[in-house]
Amino acid sequence: MGTAPASAGAGEGGGVGRIRAVYELSGSVEEEARRGARRIAYEQTVELPPGLVPPAIDDRVVGRIESLEASGQDRWRATLTYPAAAASRDLTELLNLLWGNVSLMSGIRLAEVELPPSLLDALGGPAFGIQGIRRRCGAKVRALFCGVLKPLGSSPAELAETATRLALGGADLIKDDHSLTDQSWAPFRERLRRCRAAVGDANARTGGTSLYLPNVSGDPAGLGERLDMAAEEGCAGVLLNAFATGPGTLRQVASRGDLFVLAHPTLAGGFLGREHGVAPDVLLGTLLRAGGADGVIYPNEGGRFAFDQEACRSINRALRRPMGECRPAFPVPAGGIDVERISHWTRAYGRDTIFLVGGSLYAERDLTDATRRLIDELERETYGA
Amino acid sequence: MGTAPASAGAGEGGGVGRIRAVYELSGSVEEEARRGARRIAYEQTVELPPGLVPPAIDDRVVGRIESLEASGQDRWRATLTYPAAAASRDLTELLNLLWGNVSLMSGIRLAEVELPPSLLDALGGPAFGIQGIRRRCGAKVRALFCGVLKPLGSSPAELAETATRLALGGADLIKDDHSLTDQSWAPFRERLRRCRAAVGDANARTGGTSLYLPNVSGDPAGLGERLDMAAEEGCAGVLLNAFATGPGTLRQVASRGDLFVLAHPTLAGGFLGREHGVAPDVLLGTLLRAGGADGVIYPNEGGRFAFDQEACRSINRALRRPMGECRPAFPVPAGGIDVERISHWTRAYGRDTIFLVGGSLYAERDLTDATRRLIDELERETYGA
Repeated sequence: MGTAPASAGAGEGGGVGRIRAVYELSGSVEEEARRGARRIAYEQTVELPPGLVPPAIDDRVVGRIESLEASGQDRWRATLTYPAAAASRDLTELLNLLWGNVSLMSGIRLAEVELPPSLLDALGGPAFGIQGIRRRCGAKVRALFCGVLKPLGSSPAELAETATRLALGGADLIKDDHSLTDQSWAPFRERLRRCRAAVGDANARTGGTSLYLPNVSGDPAGLGERLDMAAEEGCAGVLLNAFATGPGTLRQVASRGDLFVLAHPTLAGGFLGREHGVAPDVLLGTLLRAGGADGVIYPNEGGRFAFDQEACRSINRALRRPMGECRPAFPVPAGGIDVERISHWTRAYGRDTIFLVGGSLYAERDLTDATRRLIDELERETYGA
Repeated sequence: MGTAPASAGAGEGGGVGRIRAVYELSGSVEEEARRGARRIAYEQTVELPPGLVPPAIDDRVVGRIESLEASGQDRWRATLTYPAAAASRDLTELLNLLWGNVSLMSGIRLAEVELPPSLLDALGGPAFGIQGIRRRCGAKVRALFCGVLKPLGSSPAELAETATRLALGGADLIKDDHSLTDQSWAPFRERLRRCRAAVGDANARTGGTSLYLPNVSGDPAGLGERLDMAAEEGCAGVLLNAFATGPGTLRQVASRGDLFVLAHPTLAGGFLGREHGVAPDVLLGTLLRAGGADGVIYPNEGGRFAFDQEACRSINRALRRPMGECRPAFPVPAGGIDVERISHWTRAYGRDTIFLVGGSLYAERDLTDATRRLIDELERETYGA
């Protein structure tokens, strides 16, 4: 990759340095690709044709084409940089800057993103990250297991009973299914209280440290109140459908400092098209982590969605790699994982992973026993038999 | 279209009746298409394989396949219904129910959605709608014109100067460019005050009724405060990047009852794939309107994005058609519109339309004069020469 590094300077007030974004786009000749890149540079900032932009703004605000190189048959890699100040210290606006109106075009792929330190500092990253979650858990070294409360339509008592069984088996984390929000079958407050109490009681019986993570997704105006309730009930973390509730709500959780947050990828599919879309490691790795996710759930290869091995591994890397002062975040692969295959996945993905096992665990006769066997496998993988 | 109407019943508490959703999907034989439809029905509700779902929940919560019919070569239309209660009285969860995890699959198109009256009532729809916006404007019958303050990088004084010129020309609405949020070049509060004052001063000089719509998009935690500021400054409405800030934030504006809201489609592109995506009229019409948008901006055919005539007209219909007690909302086509073509578009789209003209107006020598000519054309189209 021959590209210009993000250079310093030009940021005023809200951010120093430049955001580097690599777009893949089509063009039968270089000039056509350059026109496409220039169109992105103007569309994503000033939304005016070049001739109508005042020179000072053209110079300091419009995206710059740092390099353009052929990457295949009629395909090109254009490296653009934007002033960090354009992102307004905000994941919502950063996404809009990188992919907002471009999302309405076609045949463009946002392949790479590098954020300058000033913007990473402003976005803040995870409040807990991998080590912070481990401090709240019993497991300091091995991979973690997250169980799921389901299905939608169950009563709070039924969900609490499932939580008890998962906690008695030693599940590290127990999260609500992402579809459980505030439906009348199990309203948020009652579900939170019952499930939190059930996990607390089970921990008291076993000496365990299972953590219940309520799903706080839903009506954005009520999010603050739901987070307060979760904290008041003593929850250590929450689940958030970040693309439904708005990616910027990750910061609303992270800035509290009292709850860690796992991001769920529901609704993200539209962003992830191969021909036209954002690379999975950019969207679910770099951007969600920068925005405050302590862990990111993604569809594991071999599961029921269309992520391949390279996508999964690239997300893992993006969540864990050095990135300014941002804490590393946990990859949370989901799908295609069960008691028999958990060792394989631990070896493949490493110990700084949370394995989410939902439906396949429900297929086991005894949920507590199945959970115990999963945890045993994770222990064995780390400490030997 | 041979499909079952949304039938009453089965809703408990949070919603009576059923949500009807038509998905187009692939299958070389009917049984394959039926498997696909069944997968959606379970994935979008209980996220468990059929055999693991308790019978009572299977009956009342899992999506029902009401009909399945061939629609073309290896393509099928599956009509599903979901209990309204699953949407939790909430646009955020409704989107998740209709398209959440399905977004991560491939080759599926959400083609039609009908919401039962109970859910429409809960979602609330626009607080103002077409008639409500007209009451705040001078124009009671003709189509409206919305100008745009740009570009990003301008100072509040520069944007206010542009606002003055648009208001002196008689622009009905004057909105911030969707990229203007809280950047240091023009922080939200100062931009709001300056531009609102500029438009107020111009109105005082001309006797006009131009309305300034600040862009309140950005950090979700600060949205309530930005809305308060807009209301305190006397704004009649706001602009919201609904897919960036979270679609549910439309309700946060609408439920106040003191500000109308135009929704901007930035970031929506990923939802709109033709092979795999949501139909434009469902996403930008039915759903945003139900969620509270008084007007919806969309990329007009002939503009710089890839919407065709049928997409534009279907959005117009979805925003204006009878839909329970929901007020009709304004279509706001943007792109490919200028002084010369405004009469054509008025005839094509009808008077209950807001025409958004951004960049092309900046190409005119005199912004005030160009605005006046646009308004003259709209008047002539309605009242004759």
